Amino acid sequence: MKLYDLQSAPNPRRVRIFMAEKGIEGVEKVSVDLPAGENLSDQFRAMNPMAQVPVLELDDGTQLSESVAICRYLESAFPEPNLMGVEALEQASIEMWQRRIEFNLFYPVLMAFRNIKGLFADRERISGEWGDISKERARTTMAWLDSHLADREFIAADRYTIADITALCAVDFARVVALRHEQEGLEHLEAWHQRIASRPSSQA
Amino acid sequence: MKLYDLQSAPNPRRVRIFMAEKGIEGVEKVSVDLPAGENLSDQFRAMNPMAQVPVLELDDGTQLSESVAICRYLESAFPEPNLMGVEALEQASIEMWQRRIEFNLFYPVLMAFRNIKGLFADRERISGEWGDISKERARTTMAWLDSHLADREFIAADRYTIADITALCAVDFARVVALRHEQEGLEHLEAWHQRIASRPSSQA
Repeated sequence: MKLYDLQSAPNPRRVRIFMAEKGIEGVEKVSVDLPAGENLSDQFRAMNPMAQVPVLELDDGTQLSESVAICRYLESAFPEPNLMGVEALEQASIEMWQRRIEFNLFYPVLMAFRNIKGLFADRERISGEWGDISKERARTTMAWLDSHLADREFIAADRYTIADITALCAVDFARVVALRHEQEGLEHLEAWHQRIASRPSSQA
Repeated sequence: MKLYDLQSAPNPRRVRIFMAEKGIEGVEKVSVDLPAGENLSDQFRAMNPMAQVPVLELDDGTQLSESVAICRYLESAFPEPNLMGVEALEQASIEMWQRRIEFNLFYPVLMAFRNIKGLFADRERISGEWGDISKERARTTMAWLDSHLADREFIAADRYTIADITALCAVDFARVVALRHEQEGLEHLEAWHQRIASRPSSQA
């Protein structure tokens, strides 16, 4: 397998951590220079019309994009350890938490980054006002997550799941817009972060 | 089962259509008055801390939220007809398309609605500028989807899937921000819309 990747970007990091937790090795990494617009080439768009990383290329040449869809495939191909739920209700519950974190923390952090920093202002209209609103929403979600984690070790289940991966990547990436969870006085979120960030997979 | 619902809202509609396609009947519908803020009550937040519809309550009292997570549960509980893929690669591919439509069409339409119309301005900061940008992005995605549908009957597979449901709900809801696909000269998207909207499920 081959992963079209960018080390500094939060979405490919989700897939790299997912792979590391499952012990998937030998995946070739191809770095795509997003700031330089390598992802905007016809060649790259033929792989992923959304012009985003990551893209996972399977050994038969099949190309998959969208981080969570890639994780879904890997979950089937490499079932252990389970990260997305076993039976129907657990799968749905973990997906519910994954999406809560994605829409209320991960995505607002990305919107804050793109609209405040303007790294892609050469290719998309941006709004500084929306950047500020997004950052504030991410901060609000962090506070809510802190209370959620007051009596839980992990976000979605009694074990590590994809929801923890999405939250870790969001909380860490929030630093690029000067939103630092450790400065928000959120002790439960901080304790969770220490547990999750200390796993070897977080270095992937 | 009981569905906390709002007839006019696009997210509950996704779940209602999903149920109709599977022939799931006898589900009690409880309408939640979002404009009046019924979803903001402590009672509702105890069901869904995100204060959103839909919420599916199972017969044992378990409550699930997040539309796609609810669909995931229903797909397991009522496997036929399949709407989210059978084997690993097909599941991942349909999820990839579902998310492409969700992030580039459905979500921008919602952001356009919330930021241009300001229906929830009593409970969230809004940005008219972001509303305009979001509407433009939805329009761009419609044009891209038109070309994708030039030689395809359905969005993600050779049959109707959850990606078609998400796209239908987005295209129809876009009318509230005066974005009408039929006025955009997109003949393939219009032909797809006629096929999909004529299914009985679209009335659910």
